[in-house]
Amino acid sequence: MRMYDLIMKKKHGCTLTEEEIRFFVDGYTKGEIPDYQMSAFLMAVCFRGMDEKETLSLTMAMAESGEMLDLSAIHGKKADKHSTGGVGDKTSLILGPMVASLGVPVAKMSGRGLGHTGGTIDKLESFPGFSVALSNEQFISNVNRMKLALVGQTAELAPADKKLYALRDVTATVDELSLIASSIMSKKLAAGSDVIVLDVKAGSGAFMKTYEDARKLAELMVKIGNGAGRKTYAVISDMNQPLGFAVGNILEVKEAIEALNGRAPEDLNDACMTLASYMLLGTGRAKELSEAKELLRESIETGAALRKLAELVKAQGGDERYVYEPDRFPTAKLSYELKAEADGYISEMLTEEIGMTSLILGGGRETKESKIDLTVGIVFNKKIGAKVAAGETIAVLYANDDDRLRAGVSRLRNALCVRTEPCEPLPHILGVVDKS
Amino acid sequence: MRMYDLIMKKKHGCTLTEEEIRFFVDGYTKGEIPDYQMSAFLMAVCFRGMDEKETLSLTMAMAESGEMLDLSAIHGKKADKHSTGGVGDKTSLILGPMVASLGVPVAKMSGRGLGHTGGTIDKLESFPGFSVALSNEQFISNVNRMKLALVGQTAELAPADKKLYALRDVTATVDELSLIASSIMSKKLAAGSDVIVLDVKAGSGAFMKTYEDARKLAELMVKIGNGAGRKTYAVISDMNQPLGFAVGNILEVKEAIEALNGRAPEDLNDACMTLASYMLLGTGRAKELSEAKELLRESIETGAALRKLAELVKAQGGDERYVYEPDRFPTAKLSYELKAEADGYISEMLTEEIGMTSLILGGGRETKESKIDLTVGIVFNKKIGAKVAAGETIAVLYANDDDRLRAGVSRLRNALCVRTEPCEPLPHILGVVDKS
Repeated sequence: MRMYDLIMKKKHGCTLTEEEIRFFVDGYTKGEIPDYQMSAFLMAVCFRGMDEKETLSLTMAMAESGEMLDLSAIHGKKADKHSTGGVGDKTSLILGPMVASLGVPVAKMSGRGLGHTGGTIDKLESFPGFSVALSNEQFISNVNRMKLALVGQTAELAPADKKLYALRDVTATVDELSLIASSIMSKKLAAGSDVIVLDVKAGSGAFMKTYEDARKLAELMVKIGNGAGRKTYAVISDMNQPLGFAVGNILEVKEAIEALNGRAPEDLNDACMTLASYMLLGTGRAKELSEAKELLRESIETGAALRKLAELVKAQGGDERYVYEPDRFPTAKLSYELKAEADGYISEMLTEEIGMTSLILGGGRETKESKIDLTVGIVFNKKIGAKVAAGETIAVLYANDDDRLRAGVSRLRNALCVRTEPCEPLPHILGVVDKS
Repeated sequence: MRMYDLIMKKKHGCTLTEEEIRFFVDGYTKGEIPDYQMSAFLMAVCFRGMDEKETLSLTMAMAESGEMLDLSAIHGKKADKHSTGGVGDKTSLILGPMVASLGVPVAKMSGRGLGHTGGTIDKLESFPGFSVALSNEQFISNVNRMKLALVGQTAELAPADKKLYALRDVTATVDELSLIASSIMSKKLAAGSDVIVLDVKAGSGAFMKTYEDARKLAELMVKIGNGAGRKTYAVISDMNQPLGFAVGNILEVKEAIEALNGRAPEDLNDACMTLASYMLLGTGRAKELSEAKELLRESIETGAALRKLAELVKAQGGDERYVYEPDRFPTAKLSYELKAEADGYISEMLTEEIGMTSLILGGGRETKESKIDLTVGIVFNKKIGAKVAAGETIAVLYANDDDRLRAGVSRLRNALCVRTEPCEPLPHILGVVDKS
């Protein structure tokens, strides 16, 4: 078999066999197929696509290109959640404890990655002493004992995807549906959970700008997950404004603690209840959505979910007092109240720009080496559809550096639009893909 | 400017500016743009194409990526001919002397290349002593004195094209019209002649299998040439059978000498008369096609063209007696007469397979290091449309090795088709692109 012939086949719109797909994934991972052939192939895929069978083969080949996590020592069906990425998304911090407090094991391996804020690991490291450096044995025993643990990515999951993604990133071949779906799903399959709930974002702050594109991606990933023998659901949610009010690491942790105290903003509550419900349904912990939601509400009302977060923080070396007394968290030195210039209604929040504002303030990583400032960020008072009066505060920016604050304020100002005509609030949950 | 953005633009079907095209050609030639980005770009071009303006910009940027031959020290307008490559094509050996004998300077720089037979250099080296190692001064003074010289490729013409072609060759991105046209024309422009006559082949033995594709390529190359200020014509000619009767180095030289003696097969005569006419027209040596053809006929009848070949051979150190006494050429040790198995008409000659037969017999280069056997090859007695009787010889194969001869016979047998129904001979000249 020659890579040249596979490029030619895909260029002419032919379908590749599973054997051919394994050949190029394995060959590329081992360095036997050069980058220049792979990038020509990827560009051909951007024009010709891959069908569902090819995409499943690609996903499996990438998932099996490195270590497949073996979670069989954990009792019961394990549930995992994955978000395609958005601004202000702190759902993992909330639904992990909720679901675990109901007895469903959540064994999470996370990377750090780049972005406008840190990842779940960075956010949890806001708790002094918290560490994700667990041994494999500790990880599994923690999940068995208390149903929840978070470990930093030690194993090399799906190295083929890592190498392919790095190449796609520099050859303008990122935005093709089958490549996106197989990339995400290969890592999820390698991470070993039985039930996978996907949060696919759509809107100005997401990779998929329209509902239709997000829906296509969601459908494809659900097919792949189910095809690979994992119970998979997808929730399509709005990302035309940040999720909740807080953007920034400690600011988001505090909002998550508020949510676990039963005081979640409506959109954040919808997100957590919906995603967590499918984790309960998929693992068999609940038989119906209504039952799942009732259980989840109880987990908040009884304080079980909040206590589960404290338990997680303590078990991994962190100071659990911060869960109950979030005022202990350090705060940024500087703040700025961004005010409305005239009466009107918030009509638009350019969410990607809001993410950039967080990055400028120091809340995210520009390169792998960047150090995150956990205290900075933005807290909104208003979301799309809200009425504002001239001089009223729309958002407060937090920073530790005058220049960064000034740049952030100017960026954020341009990201918000106030109009005189009334405007409807946005629904958060746009759709669900449930093929069970 | 970033290569990433240019890949993205082309992927989305946008047109690149001249500046952007120069950026990637120069950057790639210097090694600043990696292969993997260039191959993704080339694949995007395969799907989106380039318009005429882009193709001209690409051609100029590649032509100017290395040395541009300066032929200004040669008096008068210089004419060049280029063939897209076919089997049995010995036209350069014939029309070079014809045109030069009429006073039009032909200053040819040639490479050796790979193929089923050698190139023009290899064929001329059949004359004992002939050398293409001329200094620049000798080359120019020879052309000024006798209007004809052939030098081996010393200067690095269009290195960008060389590097890009090597990449296209391994990434399945060879067969796109604007890339083919710019590749050919960049070398022709760098080679410095004022008038360029292109012989674009169409058929089973050519890169372009259909007349329509060949016509499109021809039109595009003529536009590029004229756009670059060179008078350019294209002749579209048939390559569904070899040109003339001989395939193989010395065998073709002998057929060329026959042609210069006025005994050319009809198709070879048509090819030479047509191509050479446009060289005369373009340089202003003739005002009309009919005048050009009359002059060319005279160059044969008076023996001027044959003498010009002898003069060329002598001037470059070769034994000119071979021109007048071609029986002096060495011959192959073995031969085999391929005979018709039944009465009928030659209906098909798979020309690419006939080329492969020549290669198998030892007449071409498989790798750059291969040594060519100048004596081997095939001489046909019949072409498409000819009547044959059972037992009649269709072709004679020449070789110096039993195994090679046996393999060649079997390959050639499968390349020829004899049917009982009569079949028309093929016209050779299919069309001309003349925008003057």
